[in-house]
This record gives sequence, structure tokens and C-alpha cells, in this order.
Amino acid sequence: MMETDTITAISTPIGEGAIAIVRLSGPEAISIAATIFTGKNLHEVESHTIHYGKIIDPESEEVADEVMVSVMRAPKTFTREDVVEINCHGGMVAVNRVLQIVLDQGARIAEPGEFTKRAFLNGRIDLSQAEAVMDLIRAKTDKAMNVALKQMDGRLSSLIQRLRQDLLETVAHVEVNIDYPEYDDVEEMSHEMMRKKTKEVHEEIQKLLSVAKQGKILREGLATAIIGRPNVGKSSLMNTLVQENKAIVTDIPGTTRDIIEEYVNVKGVPLRLVDTAGIRETEDIVEKIGVERSRKVLKESDLILLVLNYNEPLSDEDRNLFEAVKGLEYIVIVNKTDLEQKLNMDEVRELAGEKPVIATSLVREEGVEQLEEAIRNIFFAGEIESGDLTYVSNVRHIQLLKKAAKALEDAMEAIELGMPLDVIQIDVTRTWEFLGEIIGDTASDALIDQLFSQFCLGK
Amino acid sequence: MMETDTITAISTPIGEGAIAIVRLSGPEAISIAATIFTGKNLHEVESHTIHYGKIIDPESEEVADEVMVSVMRAPKTFTREDVVEINCHGGMVAVNRVLQIVLDQGARIAEPGEFTKRAFLNGRIDLSQAEAVMDLIRAKTDKAMNVALKQMDGRLSSLIQRLRQDLLETVAHVEVNIDYPEYDDVEEMSHEMMRKKTKEVHEEIQKLLSVAKQGKILREGLATAIIGRPNVGKSSLMNTLVQENKAIVTDIPGTTRDIIEEYVNVKGVPLRLVDTAGIRETEDIVEKIGVERSRKVLKESDLILLVLNYNEPLSDEDRNLFEAVKGLEYIVIVNKTDLEQKLNMDEVRELAGEKPVIATSLVREEGVEQLEEAIRNIFFAGEIESGDLTYVSNVRHIQLLKKAAKALEDAMEAIELGMPLDVIQIDVTRTWEFLGEIIGDTASDALIDQLFSQFCLGK
Repeated sequence: MMETDTITAISTPIGEGAIAIVRLSGPEAISIAATIFTGKNLHEVESHTIHYGKIIDPESEEVADEVMVSVMRAPKTFTREDVVEINCHGGMVAVNRVLQIVLDQGARIAEPGEFTKRAFLNGRIDLSQAEAVMDLIRAKTDKAMNVALKQMDGRLSSLIQRLRQDLLETVAHVEVNIDYPEYDDVEEMSHEMMRKKTKEVHEEIQKLLSVAKQGKILREGLATAIIGRPNVGKSSLMNTLVQENKAIVTDIPGTTRDIIEEYVNVKGVPLRLVDTAGIRETEDIVEKIGVERSRKVLKESDLILLVLNYNEPLSDEDRNLFEAVKGLEYIVIVNKTDLEQKLNMDEVRELAGEKPVIATSLVREEGVEQLEEAIRNIFFAGEIESGDLTYVSNVRHIQLLKKAAKALEDAMEAIELGMPLDVIQIDVTRTWEFLGEIIGDTASDALIDQLFSQFCLGK
Repeated sequence: MMETDTITAISTPIGEGAIAIVRLSGPEAISIAATIFTGKNLHEVESHTIHYGKIIDPESEEVADEVMVSVMRAPKTFTREDVVEINCHGGMVAVNRVLQIVLDQGARIAEPGEFTKRAFLNGRIDLSQAEAVMDLIRAKTDKAMNVALKQMDGRLSSLIQRLRQDLLETVAHVEVNIDYPEYDDVEEMSHEMMRKKTKEVHEEIQKLLSVAKQGKILREGLATAIIGRPNVGKSSLMNTLVQENKAIVTDIPGTTRDIIEEYVNVKGVPLRLVDTAGIRETEDIVEKIGVERSRKVLKESDLILLVLNYNEPLSDEDRNLFEAVKGLEYIVIVNKTDLEQKLNMDEVRELAGEKPVIATSLVREEGVEQLEEAIRNIFFAGEIESGDLTYVSNVRHIQLLKKAAKALEDAMEAIELGMPLDVIQIDVTRTWEFLGEIIGDTASDALIDQLFSQFCLGK
């Protein structure tokens, strides 16, 4: 175990609850807890046991709280260090008070993610597993959580490790062959070996990348934009989706965001309604910023809900909207079917092509079920329900996989061109390094610091 | 132990955090946990031990989360029943998933406060201690927490129990005397004995009631209203107090309130700025609802901040404000001292009498320190800093103490009038019952249900 100081933080969410936890990790964790705890001598208790008592402020000798203290000794702990969890009464005051006393005794306040960082630095988990811990906490749906759980379990890690091992062994093998050639055609044979292996690894990486978009959607939700001319019912649609379905989060504590997002769970699909404030206020982005620029904005959405008015004839603006979403994933919603028909539905269906057209009357709450069904069908059209795939859901991992694939392609090209083996090896080594960055083997300290700083406090 | 079903709830606050806890209590707690847990056989582990493993959904056989499970066997637990705490990864999904699996296995979702209710019903704590548990969670300041901690520790309970015991023994003694008289003047002696004891107990209750207002302030914060004519700087004052001092809570998760309150901690004083939305919007309550009615509103405040404009002569509305706060606790704030003086300060001081007059320029941030000092002085004028008093802080307790005092006064009057002993005993028995209701000895089921329903979930 590394020599480190002892860190502490509140590990439960902020707010009123029955229980709040102050967690300590490090060489002094147990002795700090023992100093401020009345009850059993924590130095002498068994590992992984729980003890009732009180936390006393040694300065004032006042009781800070009645608590349950869990003692877990290294190395079988989350951080592989000694860990103590002080289970306080919920609420702000008690837990802050206990935290303050722990700090007074020489513990240092943990940085965001520092507990998990120690688990990584002490070799209990690799970087992709550490990232999965955070994904798990931020998961908005069951499916997102499953992706994170599998990643935490090391499924991605072992695949990456296997690919790296394959590359390494091939390089080593080729070198041995060259140094101690058994046959005359050693150069050619080595090229052949490299060709075979790079192709194999490249295919595996492509397979990971092919489902990466779905993985990202599972993790982050289906980024969904609602567009349409003023007064067609965009806000009503938004409100209906939010109200009919359980909003998953409307606000993430501790963060302030300019872009307001609403997460709703539509028949198991995590919908992220993006920039809804914007939708409400700017009314018509296409009109304001033009078809070209809005296409760029819309391209960042995974799904677009294009709303038309049944009670008005199709306008040029409407046609511009169809232009703007061409080639993207969208659903056409014809709203206000409770009013008189003035919209030419044949023209709408022609413009929509194969995309679904759903008739709704949001004021009468009609057609919502069909819309949700359509959203569900789009989402589950791919392989996304199959639980056995290894999903790469993290943008950082996707970037590194793309870089690794590119490096391999360079190697493959060099092989075809019959370049010398040491040139090819450079590209293969780069691939090996990119893959290593995913699991943290070849990641820089700066990267590691930056990654963990995005964690929540107390983890 | 009573025969009950097994209850479960999420015991940590809702939100993103490192750890979330699903708690179970009841006869099936351990067997339910054992069914869904991979790792050690929880039936066989020692009490008060912690075990690493995974929660598996027995239906789908999918992993729900990686967890630490704490097993605590009856009777040395919070509820005196078997208790299991499943320590999940924080975030909404993991913990809800684990909760759902626990429910699927036959646990029942706990009502608010039901864990604490079981602790009460199983005799581990009395009613006033149970109420202190909730106070502890809701405590906004250190001092409020200390009051709750002492109450939870049973300080109020033992005092109440002693008073009840005294009354009971006196009644019993008197009855014995009458049934087996040793002397002829038994009636007179018994009256004398009753007179002495009722007086003693009455004094103790009065002592409790005399500091009850302070106790209530400690618990709930100093209810503070800001009044003044339009445009004198009420909102600025409000903002200054909120910004200069750490706002304790601006919102209590899970509750919606019409009245917006801001808690700020001013030099250790918990200030509850009441209905600040109202202050901001209605501008001048006195003008709108008249002096008489506003007096009634203002009487509910523990402190009033009356704001005047240094740059304007005293108006009739200002004089009405002085009229409205007469006899109440208030501080006069003369704002806008950066502008030209048009206010007659002599008249202001005369109207204010002994109350503090503080000159401020909120735009220049001048005079705020003096104002906070004045608030602190008012708050700490009483015995409030002495930590050794037993504070009754709960409105229910205060009401019952007042009823008990009143019943004792009836008894004392009956004694003075030389009424028969059995008449006097009725009043003494009522006193005994009122006191019993505080600790739950004589509380009705309906009252108990109602009290615990105000608790937060998971406690």
C-alpha cells in the first residue's frame, strides 16, 4: 500500500434523510475514529464490524451525535486502505459537525472522486472500472446502469487487456523470429503474422465502436429535440412527456447548468429533452438561425420530434423543417386533431417518407400512447436490448478506440506496402498505448487527475 | 418483541451521492437479504458485521448492484428487530432497483417514521425521544441539534418521569394515609402534603415553560420579518443577510411550501426569514391590511426588522409601523445613509425607545456588522447560551406542559378551598396523564400515528 494521508468526506447525498455517512480512508482512519468515539476501542475490534456509540468533540467534550461506526481494515476495502464509515443521523448539522471533528483530528477533506482514485492507484480497479463507478451513480435508467455494472465488473477491461496482450505477443514473436530465423522467408512470414493479427484486433475494435452510439445513448439518454413553428404545441408536448412519465431528474444537485435538460423514462427509453428552456423561449430555431445552422444543432440530437398543426395548411417554414431534419432520426407529430383539418396529410406523409407520422390532440391527451410507442420502436430497432454485448458508452473510450483503430489502419497499410517491420511496429505500439489509456495503464497523471475531478464528492 | 412484518425504505437522502442505503427491519430482514445476496450466507454471520457481495434479482438473475451488507440482529438494533442495511452505489437507479428487489421478496415499504415508530413501540425509546430523532434530522444549527440530542438522550423524559412518579407517590401516600390513618388530622395532613407536592411540580413545569420560547427558537430559528415602506431597501436587506451569511436551507427536498423561508446563520443565531416572497411582493403589509391585522401577523415573529429611509422625512406610514410593532421585539434600521439626510433621527430614536437603531447603507455594505451584532445581542439576552438547561422545544410538549400546569393550578385551588381529596386527585391524575402524553405513556394510537407520519421516509 502506498503511503498516503487520511482523507474524509460526506458520502451520502446532501439533504434531509434518515442516515448520513462520513467516510474516512487512510492509515490514520481507525485511530482518528477511535479518538472521537465513545464505545468499544476501535483499535481492537475485528475488521468489518459495526459499533454503536457517540462521537465526542475532544475540544469541547460535547456529544456531536449518536452513531454507528463501521471499521474495515486494509486491504479488503473499497480503497484497499483502512476505511471507517461513521453512520450519523441524517440532516445537515449532525453530519457536518462530525465531519468537522474528523477534520480537526488531522484528516484531510477528500477531493471529488479521491476514494475511487485511491482504489485505482492501489490497483484494486483500473481506470475504466473507476469511470464505471461514476457512471453507475449518474445512471438514469436500468439499462444505463447495466452498462455501467458490466464495465465496473471488468468486462471491457478484460477485452482491452486481451487485445493488448495479443498485439504485444505478436510483436515479440516477430522480433524473436527475426533475431533467430528458422527459415529464409522470415520477413514474409512476419508480415503475414502481423497482417492477420492487426486485422483481428481491428475487427474487434470496430465491433466495439459499432455499438458505441447505442452505448452512449444508454448512458446519457436519447438526446431529443422538439421543433416546430410557433404555437403548434411544442411546450404542451414537452409538458405531456414530462408529466405522463416519471421525470428522472430535473436538477442535479451541486451543479449549475445553462442548458436545462429534462430526463424522462418513456417506456424504458431514457429521453433527454435537450435545451427545453430554449425551445420554450426561442420558439422557432429554424426561422431564427436558418436551415443550415439549425441542421448542425439538430445533428447533435439522437431524435427529433417535428410538430405540425392539423388546423393550418402546411407552410414554407414547415417544409424548411423537413429540409432541416433530412437524413436524421425524427418523428412527425400532427397536433391539434381536435380542431378542423386544414393540413394536407398526403403531403405530410410524402415529406415524411418512411418516418412515423403520429396524430395527436395534446389538449385531449389523444395519440400520446402511439407517440411513445413510436419512440420506443426507434430506440429498440438496433441490437440495444441484447444484454450480452460489451458497450463502450464513454466518450473518452470511444475516442481512444477510434485512435487505436486509426493506428491499426496505418499499420495495415504499411504491411500492404511491404514497409520494414520496425515501421509497422511503431503503429502497433501506438495502438497498444491508446488501448492502455482506456484502462489507465498508459494514462498520464494529468489525465487521471482530470478524470477523477469530475466525480462526486465522497466517492 | 412484537410480531410484525418486515419493512424497508431508502434511508439516505434522494440525489447523487457516493452511497445510498436500503434499510430493512423485521423478522424476515435477514432471510430476505440472504435470498438476494451473493457472498457469505447471511443467516450464519455474526451480528453487527459487514459483508461484500452482489444483489441479484432472483427473477431475472441479473446483478442489480455491488453492495456492502450490514447485518444487525435483534435486540441490539435501532428498532430492536433484526436490521439489515444494504449499502448501494449512490444515484437513483441502483438504490431503487435494490429496493424493488427487496419489495419483490415480500418486504413492505415503510411508512414515514416507521423505523423510529418500531423503536418506540418496542420500548427502546419513548415518544419525546422519538420526536427528538426527527428534530435532529431537521436541525438547522448546532444549538438546535444540541437541544435535540439532549432530548434524544432522555433528559426531558427522565425529568417528566420523575414528576409523574412524584405525583403518583403522593396520591398513593395520601390514599394509604386515609385508609390506615395513624393520626386524627389525616385529612389536614394529606391536604398539606398535596399542597407541597403540587406546588413543587408546578414550579418545575413553570421552569420548563419559562425557557420554552427559547427552546422553540433554538429548534425552529428566530422567525424574523422585514417591514418598511416601499423602496426603503427591504429586499436589499434580505439579500444582504442571505448572501453575507451561509444560507442554511433554501429548500427542503420532498416538500412543497407556499411560504418561502430562508434560513441564515447570523453569528450563531438561526434566523428564519419568514415569507420572504411575500415581503418582496406585497411591499407594505401595514398599508395593505391595516395596523391591527398586521400586528397580528407580526406577533408571530420573534423579531421584526423595521426599515426606514434616511433620505426621506418620517411619514405617517412609518409612524404606523412603529405603532404596529409596539411591545414586540424589533430593531430599527435606518437605511440609505449614503444619501442626503432628510430623516429626523431624534424623532426616530424617541419612537424606538430602548430598541436598537442601526444606521446602514446597504449599497455600500455599511452597518451590516452592527446589525448582526444587535441581532445576536437580542438572541443571547436570555439564558439561551447556558447548555445545562432542559429545553422544551416542541410545540406539542409545550401545549401539554401548559395543560399540566393548568390542571395543577386547578388542584392547588381545590386544595386552598379545602375540597375533598378525591376531587383534588382528579386534577392531579389529569396532570399525570398530560405529562404521560409527552413521553407517549398515555398517548392515543391516533396521536402516535399522526406524529410519526410527519417523519421523513426511511427513518
